[in-house]
Amino acid sequence: MPTLGPNRWGKSGVRVSKVHRGDGVDDFSDVTVQVLLEGDVDRAHSEGDNSSVLPTDTMRNTIYALAQDNLTRDLESFGAVLCSHFLESVDVSKASVSIRERRWERRSEAGFTGGGSEQRVAEVLRGSDEQTVAGVEGLVVLKTRGSAFTGFPKDRYTTLPERDDRLLATSITAKWVYSSMPEDTTITWNRARDTILERFFGDWSASVQHQGYQMAEAVLEVVPEISEISLHLPNQHHLGFDLTRFDHPDRGIIFHPVTEPYGDIAFTVRR
Amino acid sequence: MPTLGPNRWGKSGVRVSKVHRGDGVDDFSDVTVQVLLEGDVDRAHSEGDNSSVLPTDTMRNTIYALAQDNLTRDLESFGAVLCSHFLESVDVSKASVSIRERRWERRSEAGFTGGGSEQRVAEVLRGSDEQTVAGVEGLVVLKTRGSAFTGFPKDRYTTLPERDDRLLATSITAKWVYSSMPEDTTITWNRARDTILERFFGDWSASVQHQGYQMAEAVLEVVPEISEISLHLPNQHHLGFDLTRFDHPDRGIIFHPVTEPYGDIAFTVRR
Amino acid sequence: MPTLGPNRWGKSGVRVSKVHRGDGVDDFSDVTVQVLLEGDVDRAHSEGDNSSVLPTDTMRNTIYALAQDNLTRDLESFGAVLCSHFLESVDVSKASVSIRERRWERRSEAGFTGGGSEQRVAEVLRGSDEQTVAGVEGLVVLKTRGSAFTGFPKDRYTTLPERDDRLLATSITAKWVYSSMPEDTTITWNRARDTILERFFGDWSASVQHQGYQMAEAVLEVVPEISEISLHLPNQHHLGFDLTRFDHPDRGIIFHPVTEPYGDIAFTVRR
Amino acid sequence: MPTLGPNRWGKSGVRVSKVHRGDGVDDFSDVTVQVLLEGDVDRAHSEGDNSSVLPTDTMRNTIYALAQDNLTRDLESFGAVLCSHFLESVDVSKASVSIRERRWERRSEAGFTGGGSEQRVAEVLRGSDEQTVAGVEGLVVLKTRGSAFTGFPKDRYTTLPERDDRLLATSITAKWVYSSMPEDTTITWNRARDTILERFFGDWSASVQHQGYQMAEAVLEVVPEISEISLHLPNQHHLGFDLTRFDHPDRGIIFHPVTEPYGDIAFTVRR
Repeated sequence: MPTLGPNRWGKSGVRVSKVHRGDGVDDFSDVTVQVLLEGDVDRAHSEGDNSSVLPTDTMRNTIYALAQDNLTRDLESFGAVLCSHFLESVDVSKASVSIRERRWERRSEAGFTGGGSEQRVAEVLRGSDEQTVAGVEGLVVLKTRGSAFTGFPKDRYTTLPERDDRLLATSITAKWVYSSMPEDTTITWNRARDTILERFFGDWSASVQHQGYQMAEAVLEVVPEISEISLHLPNQHHLGFDLTRFDHPDRGIIFHPVTEPYGDIAFTVRR
Repeated sequence: MPTLGPNRWGKSGVRVSKVHRGDGVDDFSDVTVQVLLEGDVDRAHSEGDNSSVLPTDTMRNTIYALAQDNLTRDLESFGAVLCSHFLESVDVSKASVSIRERRWERRSEAGFTGGGSEQRVAEVLRGSDEQTVAGVEGLVVLKTRGSAFTGFPKDRYTTLPERDDRLLATSITAKWVYSSMPEDTTITWNRARDTILERFFGDWSASVQHQGYQMAEAVLEVVPEISEISLHLPNQHHLGFDLTRFDHPDRGIIFHPVTEPYGDIAFTVRR
Repeated sequence: MPTLGPNRWGKSGVRVSKVHRGDGVDDFSDVTVQVLLEGDVDRAHSEGDNSSVLPTDTMRNTIYALAQDNLTRDLESFGAVLCSHFLESVDVSKASVSIRERRWERRSEAGFTGGGSEQRVAEVLRGSDEQTVAGVEGLVVLKTRGSAFTGFPKDRYTTLPERDDRLLATSITAKWVYSSMPEDTTITWNRARDTILERFFGDWSASVQHQGYQMAEAVLEVVPEISEISLHLPNQHHLGFDLTRFDHPDRGIIFHPVTEPYGDIAFTVRR
Repeated sequence: MPTLGPNRWGKSGVRVSKVHRGDGVDDFSDVTVQVLLEGDVDRAHSEGDNSSVLPTDTMRNTIYALAQDNLTRDLESFGAVLCSHFLESVDVSKASVSIRERRWERRSEAGFTGGGSEQRVAEVLRGSDEQTVAGVEGLVVLKTRGSAFTGFPKDRYTTLPERDDRLLATSITAKWVYSSMPEDTTITWNRARDTILERFFGDWSASVQHQGYQMAEAVLEVVPEISEISLHLPNQHHLGFDLTRFDHPDRGIIFHPVTEPYGDIAFTVRR
């Protein structure tokens, strides 16, 4: 008769984002949490007796629920709160929690840049056709205010609520065509990139399309050598996580960021 | 005044899985869909007027809703159905749909192996400690029947329903320790791997833990040179997608596969 | 004064491929190796004394050198050979070797398909433009014979030798346009895909372009509903690893597969 | 008889790094280049006639060779130089070059941080065992001076030359155990992380091990609540690219960064 050796069960890859609403200035957290439990679960393995197997789906719900009051920059404390909760509520001998926090750099009262996938791009075509394109890829931005989406058409498959103020995140790809070469391509590149960021953080927008159009318009205004600019703005959704199911007040600050699917918006604006 | 050039909006990365229930034999589809629309949306971009901007979230819902009756092996027809739907229901000039289908190979009436990330593994340690470990990583399996999860503890954060029969998918990592070396490590490796697959597809299970334990027990029985075996069985969830919201009958065959989070189950079984 | 705790050093991610030349029938291995050593290396850490630190580059060279005579399907034995070598040649207390073998499935005497990234693709466009495209992505193939590359132009930057017979590997993306819809798109898809594979494994080719053209030509011949086919054939290089530097005979069977850079070949063939 | 439609061939994923040596202050470029050519290559496809097919390997060599004199921040100019070269030296009608530049942020005269994969980590274990671990993952650093590797043992498989001054790059994972909790975990985390960076950029080192040990020692000195610290320091090699083969002077400033294999160094230092 075989025996059960070391074992654990839990939930990995629980992505949680949180807006820390302030007086005019918001802060933002973006973490990935793993919870693992260990206990006397021999009969679960050998007999299929689940009476001591807390579902990993419950662990996930718990992480979101407790994040509203407990997730701060002090990751160690949030980890300890989660451990205590599971040690008290289920019959296990050990709880372990890992938290990874992605870094976002503040750019404005409610705006951030994130990640480091950003790349400067140049695309040069010569020969029977000639064109010089410059741009940026992977410029990840997020704002906790100043973005709405309302007034859209509804049909039987529409479940999206209208939102006057939503969290907006995207990974900007912008490519522009030079009709004549600027004197210093690096200075010009920085000017275009800075303009894009300024408008993303500064402008109120009615949609991703509207947001992007304002950015494109501003770049054309600021850099006379650019004849047209194309933007690709995947809408990286942060879904609200409904806490009222658990009889918690829901302050609208806890989100579930998803990688797929994403809103896929792209367009070109010409001088 | 700048002008809007080429443009489109849509939803990318919509993952849909579907069980084609048969008489004792099920088939299984696993696709990723992209929908892109083009139309006269200048005012959406320049003015923030969303009256013609079908939300990409609605596109996503529509893909799931129409998949129930229309997703078959004939991807081109499902694409055409989606295009027709959007051309009729919104004022756009073009609809384009891309579908990518992942391949799953039939192994039993309701069992499949998928993907090709599978690798044979050997880990050899020599010197002051000595051990030889063999195994497999990335052995992706799925079954549409024969897996339950009931009788688990509930608390205020539990929303998971009990299921007598659910879809079960995982990417098996199995590593076993040899107490003595088998005569032919490749024959033995194949025997262990085949046993794991047979039990996954053949045994009814009450949980991932219970499923894995039966697999481990069988390997220990079949290969006398193995002293212990460790399994890592991430539960790759296929979430039911509620179609009743759209006044469609919900036949329980349409799922949303998610990469994160995943149930994280690991344990060792010793002779 | 701090003390050194557990430590190890080594080389990870050493990719080795090997052709097992047979009498008309070749076999093929594709492994990724990690070597880690442990020993009394306190002074290396605290003093910068490297007299006992075997360079990880030497470990890498050793893996390629010993693979020629020792890498077979019996990964455990190759691991043990590597461990013995390092335990004898350097003053360490422990050597550990991990080997992961990617699976390739035999398709002909010298042809294989690999990995499982293959996806069937459909792209349907409707509205002001109409087109139906079908295809395959990620169809990974490799052959150990029947591919040459000679007679190319040379300049001061050319170092590539001419090869009458080389190993050829690629990940096929093929997309074809239907001028009229076939009766059964799945049967037709399989016919096109099978034709591509048959010609890849069956035809001698003078270059990737020549190889692909023959595949495209054959698909147009076999499926009358296809008006044009586009191929993307990244040349996934397996670089010879020169063993003569180590005073080993070099039998031309040991390769270093690289992911980047890759030869980037794409073209369309029309009826 | 089918006809050849649009087509191109070239090299993708050519990674080039370059040290711009200054008077005490170095700058650093890290780009990925793609070259694609188009021309009258029908016979190459249909007949296997390679007389006009410049090998993609030659394109790769050319990129490295021309980078020495021409790669600056002005990516567009480097792209134009490459296009001109290919249009002059081969009979093609079009040349297109794409360049992507990864961003590195200056931290010292010869030190940079790169990418944005950095994550703060907390691992909290409670129950029958208790431990609190904090740390950082994916802290990518590079220095163009101040790192040596000499005095190592040689055997028949050693080809690595001794280097008094080499480029050193790694992605730091550091995890430390708290014996007592600091008052403010975020301030303490920043102090530990800043100390790691200061020592990486400030200390001369004889090896990765020696570099890391100095970092670990300093963290233990600066943060009394830490009882031990573990480092994982993959050596991300930038290989010199020999330009003398092309009769170019080789100024030792052009490198080929590789992802695999990597030197795999890990150890723990205890108070």
